[in-house]
Amino acid sequence: MDLRETIIAARVAARHLAALTGAERSKLLEDFAAALLRPATQEAIVAANAADMANARLAEERGELDPALTKRLGLDAAKLAAVADGLRQLGAMPELVGRVTTHRQLDDGLILRRVTCPLGVLGVVFEARPDALVQIAGLAWKSGNAAVLKGGREARASNRALTDVAHQVLRAHGLDERALVLLEDRSDVDALLAMDDLVDMMVARGSSQFIHHVRAHTRIPVMAHADGICHLYLHGAADPAMAAHIAIDAKCSYPAACNAIETLLWDPAAGAALDACVAALGARGVELRGCAETRRRHPAMKPATGADWDTEYGALTLSIRQRDNLAGALAHIAAHGSRHTEAIVTEDPVAAERFLAEVDAACVFHNASTRFADGYRFGLGAEVGISTDKLHARGPVGVEGLLTYRWLLAGSGQGATDYGPSGRQYLHRDVI
Amino acid sequence: MDLRETIIAARVAARHLAALTGAERSKLLEDFAAALLRPATQEAIVAANAADMANARLAEERGELDPALTKRLGLDAAKLAAVADGLRQLGAMPELVGRVTTHRQLDDGLILRRVTCPLGVLGVVFEARPDALVQIAGLAWKSGNAAVLKGGREARASNRALTDVAHQVLRAHGLDERALVLLEDRSDVDALLAMDDLVDMMVARGSSQFIHHVRAHTRIPVMAHADGICHLYLHGAADPAMAAHIAIDAKCSYPAACNAIETLLWDPAAGAALDACVAALGARGVELRGCAETRRRHPAMKPATGADWDTEYGALTLSIRQRDNLAGALAHIAAHGSRHTEAIVTEDPVAAERFLAEVDAACVFHNASTRFADGYRFGLGAEVGISTDKLHARGPVGVEGLLTYRWLLAGSGQGATDYGPSGRQYLHRDVI
Repeated sequence: MDLRETIIAARVAARHLAALTGAERSKLLEDFAAALLRPATQEAIVAANAADMANARLAEERGELDPALTKRLGLDAAKLAAVADGLRQLGAMPELVGRVTTHRQLDDGLILRRVTCPLGVLGVVFEARPDALVQIAGLAWKSGNAAVLKGGREARASNRALTDVAHQVLRAHGLDERALVLLEDRSDVDALLAMDDLVDMMVARGSSQFIHHVRAHTRIPVMAHADGICHLYLHGAADPAMAAHIAIDAKCSYPAACNAIETLLWDPAAGAALDACVAALGARGVELRGCAETRRRHPAMKPATGADWDTEYGALTLSIRQRDNLAGALAHIAAHGSRHTEAIVTEDPVAAERFLAEVDAACVFHNASTRFADGYRFGLGAEVGISTDKLHARGPVGVEGLLTYRWLLAGSGQGATDYGPSGRQYLHRDVI
Repeated sequence: MDLRETIIAARVAARHLAALTGAERSKLLEDFAAALLRPATQEAIVAANAADMANARLAEERGELDPALTKRLGLDAAKLAAVADGLRQLGAMPELVGRVTTHRQLDDGLILRRVTCPLGVLGVVFEARPDALVQIAGLAWKSGNAAVLKGGREARASNRALTDVAHQVLRAHGLDERALVLLEDRSDVDALLAMDDLVDMMVARGSSQFIHHVRAHTRIPVMAHADGICHLYLHGAADPAMAAHIAIDAKCSYPAACNAIETLLWDPAAGAALDACVAALGARGVELRGCAETRRRHPAMKPATGADWDTEYGALTLSIRQRDNLAGALAHIAAHGSRHTEAIVTEDPVAAERFLAEVDAACVFHNASTRFADGYRFGLGAEVGISTDKLHARGPVGVEGLLTYRWLLAGSGQGATDYGPSGRQYLHRDVI
């Protein structure tokens, strides 16, 4: 295919997607869910996934692939049912396209409205997780955007099978199937990055190195998180059992996740909470690396070096550092955090409030695991990614982050020079 | 000064600005307004401005400066009063920092809130208009942000005098005056552009060439409009008198403004409206350049070339092109518009609706001049700039565009693994 022509067609298709009514959009998502569960399609998808899995296991045996990746690659009937259910939930959520967020009477017969609308064409590069393809397509359709997707190559057959189903659904709704484009070559991604006149936003998921590559090679706005260096801070008034429960969840439930913790900070008065965490984490096989103060209390622990405070292990490794007080913990987080997700454990409401007020990150939590930083858990239906940028959407990005707005003004012949000291006066009266 | 140290101090000052209550913030703006009107300060500002004006007039005489610039440079008692009034209005507007925009119960004792907060440190480069300095400072303070400003060098003395007043007000409120930093050298701007670890957003106002320079030399997100190629479309059902009134306002009231029109499009059925516009614009001394069809009706008109459709004249020049129908006009706007502001004149509500629905621009108007695309006219209090980007703020950017948000989660010890098919279920119940 000629990629540029395809993306131009995607732009046209995006306009048709944008013009759907809320009911039509919901039906599109429901039909996608139903199509995924039809026995024949299900069989085709599972077969394609089996082929991807067989290749992945061979690569794993050759030591070329992380076993964790193979696990995430799997797409059986149960996972497919969950993904279809997610699409239905998304379809049932309120319509967010065409919402009037400002409605202001500038004057009699001069009405200003700010109305949400899709961005247009999204480019999304994501890891080898075929369920992500369905979620991203669902979010794109719910927000009225065309999407150009590139998944990890290990999921190639699965992604093709899923895209075939999506295309059938689009065609059945009288839409151009190029509203969803699947790329398979890395070179196509590079070509896409150059099309800043056609692509409105890139969502990049993957390694820090990959995110930096994308940002450096495009003029398209990029939504991404390059790093996920998250902290759990044990305040002096931390409950030890709670601290251990949260630490285990935040470190061990999915160590490769961006919202897993990399460093545990503790107050000198939080010794008991630290001990509880060290015992629980040690029992789970987590490699712990401590600062001098931490090792004074736990002499068997490996020493941490300066580099540990800036390392995203993505594995069962955790650095531990004592800070003198809350201010010290805040300073450490400001210096080493990646503005993703930071959490405090404390029974002291004043300390919690200060932590929540002062940490500059997308997500700031009190007495809860950093792993809650997730679009589904936040009730956004799903997420296209997590942003550590401050502009536009921040944190887990759902449908809202895929929308922009336009200012629509309906007048009756006015010019701006009709207004002023010796002319008409603005009313600026908000209708909603 | 050591610029990097100053910007680090600005970051610290920003945290204090952010922590002000709404009432304190309003008082800060009121006090700035009052300080500007105090006789001694007023005198100092007007004297500084007189020095700038004298230099500008000399430069004008040497042919080095556009007389329009000298006009905008002026800051007399009346203009100062208007600017102070703007600050008071901004102070009286509802507090937008700390607004809870999502409040969702994820579960009993697990409460998610999305809360607005300042971006942190803004860099703003703007033209030689000293009133803009006050407006930008006002918007920065209202949004709780520190601001690093660089105004046009012709306004150097005026900007210094105004910044002195702002610094006195900050100090009187116990705030570090480095919450507002005034840069005077272009080289400082270049140094600032490299501080992507300290500056959260750059607002760039100026020539298209300058905007491109800024975007190419920084990793800081840039809010700007590089071009303002706006169209007025005379639909077949346009009222001729209204068309002429809007065309004159949109072209002649401030030709250098980004929201002035550069091209007039007309439907074959809008001949009378075109004639009315041509007569009115001609009487105002606007140079008109027409396509072949336009010149068939107005043979004395200069011919337009292809380059005219992509030119922002910023002067009393206007290109005119006939398009076969609404679809043709939409296609011309999609191909040549800069996604800033587009307007249609028509008495036909169906045509108006289609135009408003299909034009992809920050502002889309019906029977109103493109010159209404302005933060003050929109009722935003003021504007820091106009954005033609789709992400974050779009169109005129007021206080809201200088804010981001954080996700705050208050739990009671939960981990994400406590939830799932065999565990607890999410409630996802919206409190507001």
